[in-house]
Amino acid sequence: MSGETKRAVEEEVLIVSEVEEHEDEGRGDAERSLRPLLKRNRTLSSIPLAMVGDKVSHIESLDYEINENDLFKQDWRSRSESQMLQYVLSKWTLAFLVGLLTGFIASFINLAVENITGYKLLAVVRFIEQQRYVAGFILFAGSNFLLTLVAAVLCVCFAPTAAGPGIPEIKAYLNGVDTPNMFGATTMIVKIIGSIGAVSAGLDLGKEGPLVHIGSCIASLLGQGGPDGYRLQWHWLRYINNDRDRRDLITCGASSGVCAAFRSPVGGVLFSLEEVATWWRSALLWRTFFSTAIVVVVLRAFIEYCEGGNCGLFGQGGLIIFDLSNVTVRYHVVDIFPVVVIGMIGGLLGSLYNHVLHKVLILNGMINQKGKLHKLLISLVVSLFTSTCLYCLPFLSECKKCDSRLEPPACPTNGRSGNFKQFNCPDGYYNDLATLLLTTNDDAVRNIFSTNTPTEYHPASLVIFFLLYCVLGLVTFGIAVPSGLFLPIILMGSAYGRMIGLAMGSLTNIDQGLYAVLGAASLMAGSMRMTVSVCLIFLELTNNLKLLPVTMIVLLISKTVGDCFNPSIYEIILHLKGLPFLDANPKTWMSNITVGELSDAKAPVVTLSGVERVGRIVDVLKTTTHNCFAVLDGEGELHGLILRAHLIKVLVKKWFLEESWKTTDQEVKERFSWIDLAEREDGIKQVNVKREEMEMYIDLHRFTNTTPYTVMESMSVAKALVLFRRVGLRHMLVLSKHRTSGTSPVVGILTRQDLMFYNILSAFPHLAQDLQE
Amino acid sequence: MSGETKRAVEEEVLIVSEVEEHEDEGRGDAERSLRPLLKRNRTLSSIPLAMVGDKVSHIESLDYEINENDLFKQDWRSRSESQMLQYVLSKWTLAFLVGLLTGFIASFINLAVENITGYKLLAVVRFIEQQRYVAGFILFAGSNFLLTLVAAVLCVCFAPTAAGPGIPEIKAYLNGVDTPNMFGATTMIVKIIGSIGAVSAGLDLGKEGPLVHIGSCIASLLGQGGPDGYRLQWHWLRYINNDRDRRDLITCGASSGVCAAFRSPVGGVLFSLEEVATWWRSALLWRTFFSTAIVVVVLRAFIEYCEGGNCGLFGQGGLIIFDLSNVTVRYHVVDIFPVVVIGMIGGLLGSLYNHVLHKVLILNGMINQKGKLHKLLISLVVSLFTSTCLYCLPFLSECKKCDSRLEPPACPTNGRSGNFKQFNCPDGYYNDLATLLLTTNDDAVRNIFSTNTPTEYHPASLVIFFLLYCVLGLVTFGIAVPSGLFLPIILMGSAYGRMIGLAMGSLTNIDQGLYAVLGAASLMAGSMRMTVSVCLIFLELTNNLKLLPVTMIVLLISKTVGDCFNPSIYEIILHLKGLPFLDANPKTWMSNITVGELSDAKAPVVTLSGVERVGRIVDVLKTTTHNCFAVLDGEGELHGLILRAHLIKVLVKKWFLEESWKTTDQEVKERFSWIDLAEREDGIKQVNVKREEMEMYIDLHRFTNTTPYTVMESMSVAKALVLFRRVGLRHMLVLSKHRTSGTSPVVGILTRQDLMFYNILSAFPHLAQDLQE
Repeated sequence: MSGETKRAVEEEVLIVSEVEEHEDEGRGDAERSLRPLLKRNRTLSSIPLAMVGDKVSHIESLDYEINENDLFKQDWRSRSESQMLQYVLSKWTLAFLVGLLTGFIASFINLAVENITGYKLLAVVRFIEQQRYVAGFILFAGSNFLLTLVAAVLCVCFAPTAAGPGIPEIKAYLNGVDTPNMFGATTMIVKIIGSIGAVSAGLDLGKEGPLVHIGSCIASLLGQGGPDGYRLQWHWLRYINNDRDRRDLITCGASSGVCAAFRSPVGGVLFSLEEVATWWRSALLWRTFFSTAIVVVVLRAFIEYCEGGNCGLFGQGGLIIFDLSNVTVRYHVVDIFPVVVIGMIGGLLGSLYNHVLHKVLILNGMINQKGKLHKLLISLVVSLFTSTCLYCLPFLSECKKCDSRLEPPACPTNGRSGNFKQFNCPDGYYNDLATLLLTTNDDAVRNIFSTNTPTEYHPASLVIFFLLYCVLGLVTFGIAVPSGLFLPIILMGSAYGRMIGLAMGSLTNIDQGLYAVLGAASLMAGSMRMTVSVCLIFLELTNNLKLLPVTMIVLLISKTVGDCFNPSIYEIILHLKGLPFLDANPKTWMSNITVGELSDAKAPVVTLSGVERVGRIVDVLKTTTHNCFAVLDGEGELHGLILRAHLIKVLVKKWFLEESWKTTDQEVKERFSWIDLAEREDGIKQVNVKREEMEMYIDLHRFTNTTPYTVMESMSVAKALVLFRRVGLRHMLVLSKHRTSGTSPVVGILTRQDLMFYNILSAFPHLAQDLQE
Repeated sequence: MSGETKRAVEEEVLIVSEVEEHEDEGRGDAERSLRPLLKRNRTLSSIPLAMVGDKVSHIESLDYEINENDLFKQDWRSRSESQMLQYVLSKWTLAFLVGLLTGFIASFINLAVENITGYKLLAVVRFIEQQRYVAGFILFAGSNFLLTLVAAVLCVCFAPTAAGPGIPEIKAYLNGVDTPNMFGATTMIVKIIGSIGAVSAGLDLGKEGPLVHIGSCIASLLGQGGPDGYRLQWHWLRYINNDRDRRDLITCGASSGVCAAFRSPVGGVLFSLEEVATWWRSALLWRTFFSTAIVVVVLRAFIEYCEGGNCGLFGQGGLIIFDLSNVTVRYHVVDIFPVVVIGMIGGLLGSLYNHVLHKVLILNGMINQKGKLHKLLISLVVSLFTSTCLYCLPFLSECKKCDSRLEPPACPTNGRSGNFKQFNCPDGYYNDLATLLLTTNDDAVRNIFSTNTPTEYHPASLVIFFLLYCVLGLVTFGIAVPSGLFLPIILMGSAYGRMIGLAMGSLTNIDQGLYAVLGAASLMAGSMRMTVSVCLIFLELTNNLKLLPVTMIVLLISKTVGDCFNPSIYEIILHLKGLPFLDANPKTWMSNITVGELSDAKAPVVTLSGVERVGRIVDVLKTTTHNCFAVLDGEGELHGLILRAHLIKVLVKKWFLEESWKTTDQEVKERFSWIDLAEREDGIKQVNVKREEMEMYIDLHRFTNTTPYTVMESMSVAKALVLFRRVGLRHMLVLSKHRTSGTSPVVGILTRQDLMFYNILSAFPHLAQDLQE
């Protein structure tokens, strides 16, 4: 199975790249758009496979449409006021719990990272003070090696889905694609421990992306009542046991994660809105905001508790990455020039970074296919390389004399955190490169953002720092540990930002630290292509509103420049993993092809009668993989759509009729409730129908969604795609335009996969040719 | 006409209230939901009328759906790269211009208001210093009277649509309802001058709402190339001459307006997102953000210019309403109690305010119907009443001694702005009520928000202030001048917030000024029901991020409490004006009725043949008011929908055929371009068809939208409504489920009006009865 599916995916990928790389082979005639669409050489295939974690897995679409069958309607009508209140209350309670737990876990991760890294660095510094540099290196690299080992072993052996940032998969989930094992308990626990290990190991990665994933895992687990196999059967939970409410909850989880990462409640909400979520409602804005508010309250309480000295080495570090609220920001019209330059560089570098990361990820995927040991080894090599660079590069830097205005406790420092690290320098001197490298990533950000320190860094040190983090950012991202993209990008961006500030010298009124902030923002916009949310995150991070106008200008420029070259990094990863993500805007050529033509290219649609023989249903379920079937009545009149899960449920419950007749509402109500239909655990293999039962009948009317969204076969794919995405469909019923009694009105049932542009292009190669012309 | 339409509207309103006030008349049987829907006593009427400005006007839906006819497709295919670039560039240029102009106009309004009010107050203060109180009053009340007169005369005589905040109409426009004269040049100019007059007159209203309307007017005028009758025919503009792009531009305009009002760029974007816009895309977030960034840059440049003393009395006042960035905010867990109390009070008072304002607006509507003179008189009476209260109430207050730590320039003050007004007090004393009343509204807000002044206000003064602004807020809102709701609500809210702070005394760590801020926020959330955007506006206004968590808690509580009682103030106004606003969530009972039943209750649908006789088209256009007709081919096969405007265009251009035949693409291309079809100026009265032409034919195929969104007649109204709103439809084609050759497949065409709950309830009274049971 696995080999087979792998080959299928490879074939698909091959086709896509063929299409993309197809060269211009002569121009067609002027009327090429009117050419009959008969040139297709293969049927529209829609293999629901994608890379999840490290292996090709079967992915499933989510049912965001309300399945209006008789049972649902009855239940809806019979719900009492108190049940409605329970429903609303449980949604809010869960949003509260998501915020609370995300806040606690974020606090725990910060506490662990700060303490592990803190004791590690203190021990290393003690060796350096004694000038025992080799021993210091062995301790430094060794502990980093062990920490990486823990993180990597957990990821490789227990939860491959915990590696990486997880944000693309969340994005796909909220778009309507479920990936297996992505939001499970194992994934979450591995992600938490792995993230602590990887960040403590000093690797060039952040805890921000993982926190977003952890928030979503919490939301998913709470929504389904606990981990698989140990679910709570609490009756309040049954009301929210559906894909729509789980989607909303995961949106809350993702926002809470961002909020916990940056202590940025509004930024968290906007991150979900701008980058992650596909559908958005005012009510959701409001609930998401509630979750992030809870996270902030938890974090604030945690910090207050820690200020009493109860948290070991957790002190000024962690959480508040950099607070510029006391810095007076002044800038004038002349400062617009460097700001524009930073924006341009951010856009260029961001898209270049995306481009190179794309190649690196492909390479990484190839290495990953060689097995678990290779993945482990590569993680450990990266760890060793990182440790070596971080420890040895500072020796290249010359010691700089402390500014005499700074008193000894401020310069040089030798503690866990602090600016102006002494490292190998004599008293009264500091090593500027050690200040940036031999510290936690959070402290490195704080140090490079530091204001009123115009002479702290030698230009060469900044260049080394920048180049090092360019390399590290690329090699670290694909390894098998939980890793976020935010921090590497912030580090890289702040380096060139500060370099520009240094180069401007006295020509500018803006502090070098603010240049570093702008550089970080520009690279985030250039690579992730977010604007409003990055702006808000930086606003809440720096706590200084006067920076807002320049930040906005930088973000706008770098996103515009970046968009000229390639899509955002998340979109690149989504595409690379083969997740069928529905874009907001259809491609222009999609208005040249109709859904009828797409349906023709698919296998004929399977229809069932309103009252169908058990044997035929079992047969259809076994021989097809469709998730949904059209139900027709006598004269070819459409009754609606029935889901595979519901058919299986009826088979499992053995609600068979002796003869072909229609049942009443009352009869079905006695045997089924909508709660039965909401459960989706059984597969066709669990069904055990006796031979004599095969000749009996099932009345499907009661289980059929009688109000599916339909389109005429003449609808263009472009318009159908808008409907599909906006309304959140899983199946789109295509109806015939011609009206002949007795024939089936159903032309086809289109799914998400059928509407993906690469599937269409592979089935209709002339469209791809037209694109080239 | 006017009398007739008025009666129709009154009848409709009557029906709605009948339905709402219908008493419980015995319970139906258990199966009432299965009862055949034959009880309806009248057909589904959909009179497209609403209150616009002061009169009942014909409103029109907007075409947000892409009209995929042959001409459109051809144009789309033939667009060159450079044309696409022009399209994108013009969208961005317009967004830039919207921001620029909104910024300039906001600066101008602030400049004018600050100078007019400043000189007025200085003159009044001079009289008071000489103890010539009556002369001072005459000057004060007289100048306010004149300023109100100017504003009211402009509004009443030239642009009734400029009265009020305008935000409900913008909300309706972005939902798909166009109201006449709402976004014209006259309205904008009257709004600008009227707003200056009304705010300078010291009325209890703000320039915030009007600025939002002005921003939208600018956007609309720019989008259509200038005011009606003087439009630029620049060819770049033709690409954005459609309802979709104008919608996006008006969203930018509304955001820019909020941004200009509060100098809050992110708050402006979120205001549009949360409160105003119905559809939202990531790309729009990004463009809106660009506009607000421009506004901020313009405002900053303006303030910098004015700091040089070039702007008369415009100084510290205006724009930056209150900056708390230098205030140290400290609060602990114990402070949660007063915060919760403020939230609860905000919710209760907000919903009470909405309730009373609803009644006041109904009363106002009745007075307005009596004619222009009544409207003028009421405005002037309100002005006199306001002036009397503002001038005379401070005499009730006792003089308080200045805090000796404050040096004389700070206390007492006698200038245009400043805290601790001397008014009628001896030197070294100040009048706390005069500080709040005898000043501009902006200064009043600044003074009541002032921090570190715990003993400044006597409780009785705050009570008087609060009660006065409750009364003024209610009587002022409906009068015929441009008026915003933000400022009255902020004033009221800050009063009770500060009162609670005063009552808490030493029990709390939070400054009284911050209590006032929280009170203002809570009333905004309680009345307008916005959360995230209010939070952002206050965040950017106070420039202090540490307030964020408490603000969030207050907002969440007051919105939740408010929602228990009534909808938001904007929704109340929308409903009152009869604007058919599509809600995000359908009513639950809507799943008990199908679109087929709705269609049956309408007049039979008018269909045209693919090649139709000119005479029949003219006849249909003259005898019906439909905006859209179904086009059928020979055997009852559906070809698509054709718009009234396109039919008229073909008639005007006289593209008639001698006989009934089909035309080719080429033929139609020679006569028409999509630009012709984009223009919507002509009415059927402009059409002049000769008698002999009546017997000729028109081939409608080329102008027909061949891919309308369709639903089956069995679709429930609830689901259809979701489709209608999410996809942004104007017409929904309902198709028959039964398939008989030769009959029309079209059951009906539903519009926005047909889906409004009150129209459905009036056509199906038993549904209303069920609701009562």
